[in-house]
Formats: sequence, structure tokens, C-alpha cells
Amino acid sequence: MTTLVLVAHPHLADSTSQQFFKASLPATGVTWEHLDAQPAFDIAAEQDQLRQADRIIFQFPLYWYAAPASLKAWEDTVLTRTFVYGDHRYPLAGKELGIVVTTGMPAKAFQRGGVEGQTLDALLAPLAAVAHRARMTWLPTLAVHQFGYLTEAQKLALVVDYQRYLTQPQPDTLANRQAWFADRLASMVQGLTPEQRATGELIATTFDDHRSSLDELTDTLAMIKETEDD
Amino acid sequence: MTTLVLVAHPHLADSTSQQFFKASLPATGVTWEHLDAQPAFDIAAEQDQLRQADRIIFQFPLYWYAAPASLKAWEDTVLTRTFVYGDHRYPLAGKELGIVVTTGMPAKAFQRGGVEGQTLDALLAPLAAVAHRARMTWLPTLAVHQFGYLTEAQKLALVVDYQRYLTQPQPDTLANRQAWFADRLASMVQGLTPEQRATGELIATTFDDHRSSLDELTDTLAMIKETEDD
Repeated sequence: MTTLVLVAHPHLADSTSQQFFKASLPATGVTWEHLDAQPAFDIAAEQDQLRQADRIIFQFPLYWYAAPASLKAWEDTVLTRTFVYGDHRYPLAGKELGIVVTTGMPAKAFQRGGVEGQTLDALLAPLAAVAHRARMTWLPTLAVHQFGYLTEAQKLALVVDYQRYLTQPQPDTLANRQAWFADRLASMVQGLTPEQRATGELIATTFDDHRSSLDELTDTLAMIKETEDD
Repeated sequence: MTTLVLVAHPHLADSTSQQFFKASLPATGVTWEHLDAQPAFDIAAEQDQLRQADRIIFQFPLYWYAAPASLKAWEDTVLTRTFVYGDHRYPLAGKELGIVVTTGMPAKAFQRGGVEGQTLDALLAPLAAVAHRARMTWLPTLAVHQFGYLTEAQKLALVVDYQRYLTQPQPDTLANRQAWFADRLASMVQGLTPEQRATGELIATTFDDHRSSLDELTDTLAMIKETEDD
């Protein structure tokens, strides 16, 4: 799978969260682009990049309840009507659109009665409408609230969540999570020294064995939960 | 009342609707500013302009379900946190925020099941959230769909609707509409030649007489309507 991450941030070097995300990028399969760094967009190149991606991520801090202006400038320039839905060709159809958004306010601010009075989902309506028009699949948003106050343990978990958000097949089921971890485990074992590799392979095999029995248990549990009344 | 109209449009000269709005501006009480024409925003001057206005209008074509990037750039630059809600001063509190938006799609596209699948209100959520945060009063939106296909009669009516949207006291009740028209009638009579003025004054007096009796009738009718079940 190929993922394109488009980052909108006017002061990227000063952003600890964006630097964190950049350092957390998976080693392969991801193209990362900083929109504000471009004096003008190369429309053909940008459109080509979109065509080649399976998953497209808009990544930005929430400024006045939307992305910074650079993302809108990119949309207004690169997403020409002819490209997105002209002549009933829909080159983005079926691709996934995900949002990685950081906010200065806590999660609870984004609800009716909260300080912001609106859900993040409601605020992202214009981007969801773009996905709808382009016949893309909208992914559940990855929101990171008050990054600066995360503990080290929370940041470590965020590295994995972020990598999964960029590269794990959707939907985010246990089965897909397990397959993603098994993949990562396999490639980590490849990178081990010969003396470590035997242990690594043993761990990977054990993981795979447990995965099968866990799958069965999970399916049964999910079925029970879904048929139960609240 | 002082109204500030901030226009976001990257190609203003080519926009028949924006040229139409510009030609329809009331003669007094309105400051008009084209955001895209400014290479950089003079933050202090922009903030000062906002402080002096009673009503602020964002006027733009809907590009990808939001304003063009220039409005977002203006927000990101001019609306500093310190200005909008720092130190618990809220210099914009109580001011009105109105949206004049043109769309290429018809009104019926903006609903569940319509081509766009979202209401205009839902798409404007980020701007409504700004108003909410700044403690401004959100005005009902003036949406103009498919301007190019309006008839001459519809365009004439739009001139009046637009002028009222910019300068008439809210809410848009019959009483406020009548007072606004009476004002305009009075200033038109002032501009007449002496021989026309007697007729003009007669018309204005008749309008005023009818207004009083119409007021009573309307109040009664509104009361009946509101107490009736559907």
C-alpha cells in the first residue's frame, strides 16, 4: 500500500508534534510532503502523486476550526474540477482519505456544551464533503489533543497508532491489527543478528499461533456483544 | 451601523456575481475589502477595522465546501488568540457575523441525499465556531445559488436582499424590513427635484400610514400562526 501524507503547517520546524510525527514515519511505503514549503504547487506532479497513492492523509494543527490556509490553497489549486470529477472519471474513487489533526484543546472541548461547542467530525465537514464528491473512503480521524502534555508512554503508543493509521489496512479490526503487527514482527526479525534470529523467529511463530485462537475467541465475543441489547 | 465586508475571491475581476455585489453596495456605512488583493495583511489595521464594525460579512464563492484560501490566511494571520479571546477581553463580542456565499450548485444539492450530501450550515461549521469563540452573533447565511442563471427580476430582488443583509437591523422581521425601507424612501425623497418632491413626500407618508396598520395585522397573524399546531 502507498500512502501520501500532506502536511499543512506554517511553522513546521517549531512544531514538536509535527517533528514527532515525522520521526515516527514508517520506513517504507509513505511519501511525506510539506505543503507550506512550496512557493507554488506543481499541479500535474501533485495530481500524479494522488493517482499513485492508495491512502491520502491530510495532517495539520486545527487553526480556527480548520486546516491552515496552505491546505485550502492546495485544494483550490490542485483539486481542479476536471481532475476530481470531470467527464465522469473519478481518479480518486476508492482511495482512502484520513485526517491527522492536532488540537490545543482537550477532547472534551469538542462536543455540545464543551468550550468549542462542536465535534471535530462536524468541523471537518468540508473535507468530508471533498471525499464524498471524489468518491473516496473517509477514514475515522486520528485526533491528537494537547500533544505537549502526553506522557512518554502515551507518546510511544502514539508512534504505533500513527504508523498503523498510515499503513494498516482498514477497518481497524483486531484481525487487521494482528496482521499488521505480524508483518512488522517479521521484518524486525529479518533485521536481527544471526544469534538473535532464532529467538525472534520463535516469538513470531508463537504470535502467529496465538493469533489464530484469539481470532476465534474475538469473533465469538463480537457476535455476543452485537446481539445484546444495551 | 457600520458594516465591514471582507471578500475572498482569487479572480475578482472575472466574477460576475462579485462585480454585481460590488455595484450593489449601499452608498454609505459599508467598508469593502478584497482580501486576495493584499500581499500581506496589516494585522493592526485589520483588527482596528474589526473593532469599529458592528456587522462583519465574509463574502466568497464556495470552493471545495469552504471559503477560498485567502479568507483562511486572513483568519490565521489577523485573528490572533490574544486579539479574539486573550485576557478575557472579547473585542468582537456582540458584533454580528454574516456570510454571503455563492455556489455553483443549486440549493437542493445541499441536503442529505442531494449531490453534495451536506447542508450549507453544516459546511460553514468552522466559521460558526469562530463566531462562537469570539462571542459574536451568527446571522442566517445569505446564499446565492447559480448566480449566472438568475433572471433580471431575481437580480433586482437580490440587490435589495443584499443591501438589507449588509445594513438592516436583525432579526429580519417585517417591522425591521419596513423601517429599513422607510429610511431608504426618506433619503430617496431628499434626492428628488423640487417639483417631484411633493409626490415623493406623499408616497412616504402613505407608506408610513399603511405601515402602522400593517404592523397590527402582522402581529395578530404571527400570534395565530405560532399557536396553531401543524
